[in-house]
Amino acid sequence: MQSGSPPTGPRRPAEPGMALAEVQTPALLVDRAALDANIAALASYLQSRAPGIRLRPHAKTHKSPDIARLQLAAGAIGVCCQTVAEVEAMVAAGIPDVLLSNQIAEASKAARLAALAGAARIIVCVDDTAQVALLAAAARDAGVVLHVLVEIDVGGHRCGVASAEAARSLALEVARHKELAFDGLQAYHGRAQHFRTYEERRDAIASAASIAQQAAALIRESGLLCGTITGAGTGSFEHEAASHFYTELQCGSYVFMDADYARNRRGPNNALPEFAHALSLLTTVISAPVPERVVCDAGLKAMSLDSGPPSLARHPGLAHAGTSDEHSTLLVESGAAPMVGDKLQLLPGHCDPTVAMHDWLVVHDGQIVTALWPVARGR
Amino acid sequence: MQSGSPPTGPRRPAEPGMALAEVQTPALLVDRAALDANIAALASYLQSRAPGIRLRPHAKTHKSPDIARLQLAAGAIGVCCQTVAEVEAMVAAGIPDVLLSNQIAEASKAARLAALAGAARIIVCVDDTAQVALLAAAARDAGVVLHVLVEIDVGGHRCGVASAEAARSLALEVARHKELAFDGLQAYHGRAQHFRTYEERRDAIASAASIAQQAAALIRESGLLCGTITGAGTGSFEHEAASHFYTELQCGSYVFMDADYARNRRGPNNALPEFAHALSLLTTVISAPVPERVVCDAGLKAMSLDSGPPSLARHPGLAHAGTSDEHSTLLVESGAAPMVGDKLQLLPGHCDPTVAMHDWLVVHDGQIVTALWPVARGR
Repeated sequence: MQSGSPPTGPRRPAEPGMALAEVQTPALLVDRAALDANIAALASYLQSRAPGIRLRPHAKTHKSPDIARLQLAAGAIGVCCQTVAEVEAMVAAGIPDVLLSNQIAEASKAARLAALAGAARIIVCVDDTAQVALLAAAARDAGVVLHVLVEIDVGGHRCGVASAEAARSLALEVARHKELAFDGLQAYHGRAQHFRTYEERRDAIASAASIAQQAAALIRESGLLCGTITGAGTGSFEHEAASHFYTELQCGSYVFMDADYARNRRGPNNALPEFAHALSLLTTVISAPVPERVVCDAGLKAMSLDSGPPSLARHPGLAHAGTSDEHSTLLVESGAAPMVGDKLQLLPGHCDPTVAMHDWLVVHDGQIVTALWPVARGR
Repeated sequence: MQSGSPPTGPRRPAEPGMALAEVQTPALLVDRAALDANIAALASYLQSRAPGIRLRPHAKTHKSPDIARLQLAAGAIGVCCQTVAEVEAMVAAGIPDVLLSNQIAEASKAARLAALAGAARIIVCVDDTAQVALLAAAARDAGVVLHVLVEIDVGGHRCGVASAEAARSLALEVARHKELAFDGLQAYHGRAQHFRTYEERRDAIASAASIAQQAAALIRESGLLCGTITGAGTGSFEHEAASHFYTELQCGSYVFMDADYARNRRGPNNALPEFAHALSLLTTVISAPVPERVVCDAGLKAMSLDSGPPSLARHPGLAHAGTSDEHSTLLVESGAAPMVGDKLQLLPGHCDPTVAMHDWLVVHDGQIVTALWPVARGR
């Protein structure tokens, strides 16, 4: 009974060459043309506006080595990850330079990370001496060097040391370990990504840069290089790019563009790319019990509602009424009601946790499936 | 680049014999003693209060063949599932009688279901002639019989035919197909599960039973047996059990008890079992940047927030402040602040979608891991 045998491998919802109408649902679709356009648009923007700044896209959005390779081919220098499992998947796929933009507090995870440092440049964040000790021990045991950024709280009030002095002190602690290389500062302002007005985002990033600059100055006074200043996301990168201080950008969501980010209002500088919705959740209408209501098989186990319900922009006559484990109930407000068996495309409110619910990205060109890309969703 | 190779198998977060402090996080813990007590408590309640009523627990809560076997050993006649993939996992594990308490609108899924009907009794719901046609064709092709329930809307306003007359008409349509066996009615009131007062739940189920009784009477007048009347969940089962009309109960969440169900207020009949929280999310404190705030590695990809944030009942000095993809921020309101590396146990707001995010259930007896049970989380 306590079998412990592994779950069977993930079933493929489609095969290349299939029509979208044949894909088993719920399934995540990636519009290849929109994906390519988004990747090209950010690369082009940065080339013209902030030449020299490095792009290290966040792979927590897609968890896809296939997409990471497309980003590197367009000029990205590597990727960010948020978990050790993501780092493992990216290094296994040949990505040569990976930042774990997060803290580790388990010896087992530090060992997993150190085991990868022979195959790629591995960078990791710290904000506490306990993490430094774990990383140093793991690097020493593995005979490798781990690169380290000190994370400083620049306004997000999540992780990160609380002062420039604390950042200097921790940087010096890192530098005491020959198995660790101090690279610079993680200065990411998560909250600012979703401030709705241009001015709020601009002011938040100006403040973030000021806090990080003070820390960098103190660290440099102590005789350490502080070559990397990294942060930014899809909501705020225009400001970090214009700061003349940040050296790397971590934008992730731009590849897919979720419904929530699309609600951010643009500023007077209208040169920002218009990223397209490249990710959608394909769902089948499984019930149409009355003319004013249909039910589809897109539920809480197939899409995350943390940033609100999915957008029905591709089905303007329908309105979202509710979602349970394996169902969404949609109201028919105008137009012809969908029929049982019809397929719909919902735009997820938040792409990142939605992707983590799926084993596969079903890539399509128009109505035809062109590839299946695995999602590195383990832990 | 368009490799299509499958993701690597799921990493095991622990091994039997390990202390909980060594489990890699975030990981879902199942307290074996609490689980066993919950299973026994419902069985005992039904034996004394509603002898003869059949229990068919909903496996969408746990997605675990191991737990399904424990439920059958305690008297359950089979399980409910919400997806074809769950049915496949349960039949593969030897569960002999499985109800897909949901509609199918894809020929590919009907074929998958029919392929299982040689190994188990398979029952499925319909509320539209299109589903009946798909199921009949798949059963004919596979040379099997599929059992069918007509779902009637008893107040949940999700799936289900809208009238007793429509239920009769669809039952007769099912009966026209020799590959399909009409078994009765699915009469589940999902919304009633979360009505907070005893009286609201009692009245909702009285209304549901009345609606289903009218449909059953019409169907029986037409010369069809209507032997199965199935519904109920953890929030309302005392009422269906007392109805003298329902023949089967579908309670699922009782095995784990999530924070949301625990908010339902009990009625005057205090013989209802007190189900214990058997599921918790083990998380590690990865950052403690200031005395009043810590950050742990339980994020949106490890627990569902659709029914509110997790309960911190096991850590009364802490309060939930926010959750992002791989973090939760907790405020230290009283007592000693946890330190980096400390482990916490959060009680998920909603167990079902939380379980679906994990590959393994880590079963424990006190502080020691006793088993790893796979989660059938594919599609």
